[in-house]
Amino acid sequence: MARPSLRENLIAAAVEQFHGRGYAATGVKDITDAAGAPKGSFYNHFKSKEALAVVALERYGATRGLDSLLDPAVPPLTRLRRHFEFLRDENIDADFSRGCLVGDLAIEVADHSEALRTSTRKSFEAWAGALAHAITDAQRAGDVSKALDSSTLAGFVLASWEGALISARTERSAKPFETFFTIVFGVILR
Amino acid sequence: MARPSLRENLIAAAVEQFHGRGYAATGVKDITDAAGAPKGSFYNHFKSKEALAVVALERYGATRGLDSLLDPAVPPLTRLRRHFEFLRDENIDADFSRGCLVGDLAIEVADHSEALRTSTRKSFEAWAGALAHAITDAQRAGDVSKALDSSTLAGFVLASWEGALISARTERSAKPFETFFTIVFGVILR
Repeated sequence: MARPSLRENLIAAAVEQFHGRGYAATGVKDITDAAGAPKGSFYNHFKSKEALAVVALERYGATRGLDSLLDPAVPPLTRLRRHFEFLRDENIDADFSRGCLVGDLAIEVADHSEALRTSTRKSFEAWAGALAHAITDAQRAGDVSKALDSSTLAGFVLASWEGALISARTERSAKPFETFFTIVFGVILR
Repeated sequence: MARPSLRENLIAAAVEQFHGRGYAATGVKDITDAAGAPKGSFYNHFKSKEALAVVALERYGATRGLDSLLDPAVPPLTRLRRHFEFLRDENIDADFSRGCLVGDLAIEVADHSEALRTSTRKSFEAWAGALAHAITDAQRAGDVSKALDSSTLAGFVLASWEGALISARTERSAKPFETFFTIVFGVILR
């Protein structure tokens, strides 16, 4: 029986390696090395790199702070702004590298792995759902127009964020984030 | 002296292979095989896969229809709408796969190759510049508010398109494009 902590170490190492190197550039040995585990131990826990990536995406999703988008104690537009400020600050701290692991894997692997396309789709759906929840609350509070439904707005805001991460990465600059805040909170969510 | 056409074949094959497989997953042999060239011929033309990718990005950029964004004979918002309809239709024809080669390489390689980060940045700059030109024309024509400057709007629209491509790819659906047109032309560029 393998130690539970080894499986957790492999998942944490996979999030880190896939995020830092990309999927194709990460080998199983990179993951076991980063986890301080013998390479042979990998297949006691996961049947493939792809299967581990599915779990890594779930684990990464749990760090995105989606719960705070649902918090009724905070005004809905404040929740939305704080959410993207959290993601922005994380990316600035990473020197504009890495982007969002969901978007990274969606671009690199979704065409080639049905399992990972499904996982990235589900991750985005959960995220868009939490954004739509906060936007619906903002619409009910009269802070955002009801001319467009909250799920349409949420899908657009999510996509715009993923795009802003690409721009920030190529420019190594926070300017695309400033533009995102200006237009999302000044033009779209009002 | 190598035939000029072999170099062109290698560039065309590189665009196709990088776009279809991703950068890390494409080997020099995949490119020479696709070009119908002996592997050894590669280094007569390019010093590395990275050097070829820089040229491939320029070649891809020339197929993005940026010139039509500058055409003074067409109303500026019509130019902008047709531009994104062209990109949308191309992606639908590709069954929502591949995305934009610039965004794909930005996400996969920009952190690891300064040459390719610079190339993707320049590609986006040229694209944003052409979008800003059309938006400036639309502002002068009174079709778009001057409350935000055209380069801010262009950067946001470009990023939103890149994000819409990610969503379309994970969902295998044109719905993110519909949302893009609804919000970009109904809310932002007005």
